[in-house]
Amino acid sequence: MTNHVYKNVELVGSSATSIEDAIENAIGTAAKTLKHLEWFEVLETRGHIVDGKVGHYQLVLKVGFRIEA
Amino acid sequence: MTNHVYKNVELVGSSATSIEDAIENAIGTAAKTLKHLEWFEVLETRGHIVDGKVGHYQLVLKVGFRIEA
Amino acid sequence: MTNHVYKNVELVGSSATSIEDAIENAIGTAAKTLKHLEWFEVLETRGHIVDGKVGHYQLVLKVGFRIEA
Amino acid sequence: MTNHVYKNVELVGSSATSIEDAIENAIGTAAKTLKHLEWFEVLETRGHIVDGKVGHYQLVLKVGFRIEA
Amino acid sequence: MTNHVYKNVELVGSSATSIEDAIENAIGTAAKTLKHLEWFEVLETRGHIVDGKVGHYQLVLKVGFRIEA
Amino acid sequence: MTNHVYKNVELVGSSATSIEDAIENAIGTAAKTLKHLEWFEVLETRGHIVDGKVGHYQLVLKVGFRIEA
Amino acid sequence: MTNHVYKNVELVGSSATSIEDAIENAIGTAAKTLKHLEWFEVLETRGHIVDGKVGHYQLVLKVGFRIEA
Amino acid sequence: MTNHVYKNVELVGSSATSIEDAIENAIGTAAKTLKHLEWFEVLETRGHIVDGKVGHYQLVLKVGFRIEA
Amino acid sequence: MTNHVYKNVELVGSSATSIEDAIENAIGTAAKTLKHLEWFEVLETRGHIVDGKVGHYQLVLKVGFRIEA
Amino acid sequence: MTNHVYKNVELVGSSATSIEDAIENAIGTAAKTLKHLEWFEVLETRGHIVDGKVGHYQLVLKVGFRIEA
Amino acid sequence: MTNHVYKNVELVGSSATSIEDAIENAIGTAAKTLKHLEWFEVLETRGHIVDGKVGHYQLVLKVGFRIEA
Amino acid sequence: MTNHVYKNVELVGSSATSIEDAIENAIGTAAKTLKHLEWFEVLETRGHIVDGKVGHYQLVLKVGFRIEA
Repeated sequence: MTNHVYKNVELVGSSATSIEDAIENAIGTAAKTLKHLEWFEVLETRGHIVDGKVGHYQLVLKVGFRIEA
Repeated sequence: MTNHVYKNVELVGSSATSIEDAIENAIGTAAKTLKHLEWFEVLETRGHIVDGKVGHYQLVLKVGFRIEA
Repeated sequence: MTNHVYKNVELVGSSATSIEDAIENAIGTAAKTLKHLEWFEVLETRGHIVDGKVGHYQLVLKVGFRIEA
Repeated sequence: MTNHVYKNVELVGSSATSIEDAIENAIGTAAKTLKHLEWFEVLETRGHIVDGKVGHYQLVLKVGFRIEA
Repeated sequence: MTNHVYKNVELVGSSATSIEDAIENAIGTAAKTLKHLEWFEVLETRGHIVDGKVGHYQLVLKVGFRIEA
Repeated sequence: MTNHVYKNVELVGSSATSIEDAIENAIGTAAKTLKHLEWFEVLETRGHIVDGKVGHYQLVLKVGFRIEA
Repeated sequence: MTNHVYKNVELVGSSATSIEDAIENAIGTAAKTLKHLEWFEVLETRGHIVDGKVGHYQLVLKVGFRIEA
Repeated sequence: MTNHVYKNVELVGSSATSIEDAIENAIGTAAKTLKHLEWFEVLETRGHIVDGKVGHYQLVLKVGFRIEA
Repeated sequence: MTNHVYKNVELVGSSATSIEDAIENAIGTAAKTLKHLEWFEVLETRGHIVDGKVGHYQLVLKVGFRIEA
Repeated sequence: MTNHVYKNVELVGSSATSIEDAIENAIGTAAKTLKHLEWFEVLETRGHIVDGKVGHYQLVLKVGFRIEA
Repeated sequence: MTNHVYKNVELVGSSATSIEDAIENAIGTAAKTLKHLEWFEVLETRGHIVDGKVGHYQLVLKVGFRIEA
Repeated sequence: MTNHVYKNVELVGSSATSIEDAIENAIGTAAKTLKHLEWFEVLETRGHIVDGKVGHYQLVLKVGFRIEA
């Protein structure tokens, strides 16, 4: 790591299935337009309720990627 | 959304199986007595340890429901 | 509980599979050297990204165990 | 104040007009079913956006009322 | 603990005497209407000042109780 | 909401008039370049003082918009 | 700005009218005794409830002023 | 309360005896120079250890008093 | 203090009697195995409820001790 | 300042030399692509350890720049 | 330390040179009017950017001094 | 990184010279007894004041090291 600079962005991914799936959805979408994604951190785990069950998980993530100088 | 009012309550659900299952248990129990549950947010993810393994996950949730005016 | 004293330690467990698996890895490793593990709390959920997917989940946990006086 | 006990509840009021109006809506609705409301605190100020303008303000409040022992 | 669900409520107890007494007042009052109270956590310790002395301690508590499913 | 992904950005809007006006200024400016703005949250309310009066309100907002996958 | 030093003080302003009015009241009162007031930040927005309506807004502010060296 | 303005100051009181005594020491000292002290809030409870026992409690308090306009 | 290095550990002490007693229990137990204990800070004050009264106080402390280089 | 709108971005700069150097690296890299950089705030100071010494400082910064309307 | 009382004040020091220099400027200025300064804590590290470089560091400090009873 | 487990410890390093020097002192001392130190994070930057100048910087760090399973 020789004086690299990174940018962190905040994304929200959703999934009707699981927490891990919502994280993958957010990262997979980000990877279509951003190169050098390196890490993520979960900021919030939330969701909508439909008929007394979890309808969708919503994961708020901070995602970091390396900027090419 | 025309000037609705919501109430947030804090619940703790548990499960020996998974984080998602503990969330569903809390919401499912709340849905027996509260109508119009709309969303949840995970406040804490914790649990008990039994014999060096997770015995129970305990998920502290904030759950919001619409109040009928 | 008659005036027991507990110590909390902070551990980071990782897993390529799931959040629950990373928690179990941290607790299982701690249980090899610490007796009387009683509870855990998730402090951070984060991870590394490899090729636009989650490479590893990293779970930062606080783990409590009873001290024998 | 002679050893009174209070309960705090968390409410979300909304308004298309202003922040103050959303606070009044939440308190006014609560006052229909709760007696002895005494104070409030704003926890979050948020809202929805419609066509590049604020559609609704949503004010998350903690509201305290005295319990009759 | 087999998949119990708990609810947390926020209470404020007061006492002119001591911090411990204000905690007991809040819990004692709650116990009149809520069954299965299991734990508490102090969120804030505050109070009013009268003539340069503590007039009343006010303890803001989170109190948890088990919901009967 | 079928597995949408959102991005959150942090903006600062100012106004010499009111808090609501500063929020509208930030959102209105963002709407010129970003589509699908859906919600906002106030992170900080601050401002400059001129001659013992509020010169400008400065509202720090988190604004979320849907990413087209 | 050439190595100036500032002091921050915490004030509470109140108003029966609006949030902005409570801010102006706090700043206006501070300006009677403090010179070089430069900025403010809202720390808490709270108030008292009277008859199911806002009786007074109470705004807790941090206010900064330049110290003359 | 008709548009009063309050100032909050941060004090640290100590006592070798108890938490309540350290609070009273801080408030009692403040009352010698400040009029209209109205409330306090405990920000931190800490202390020094001497020979494996509490030597002194140190209570960090926020104390509010009314400013005469 | 000439370039000393300290280590902070997190302990939980309990007592059926008082908050101060729970602090002393945690520090007294730590002092049996750790030398040079110098300070503590209360992180959380919580406890269990038995029959509508405080059963045990549980004090979570950060305790610092000097490392001999 | 006449109703300007600002955007805040989060950057991570690194340096093997000093904290100040890591800040300058992040800002210098951002200035290559962003105009009107006006302020920064340090969110986290961290780093990697190599052979018992600091290998690299990593400074997480929030950096604000004015948007041209 | 025999029941001393301390007051904490919040200061902002600036420097074009380094973080340490901004801290010394704030403390040095405070020492001109306040006796018995005993400790400080950095609350925020921020600054202004000029031409893609740090123009000034601004260090927000909490500074404590002993009150003579 | 194949399912490694890390432990985080909290250390306080001091230096009369600079912030960076206090960090190096804490890490250097830890490295004498702990292997596989990998990263650190600054939790608090504080210090003592002597004669209106910084006497010692005290840096509270979280330091992580890999546990050999």
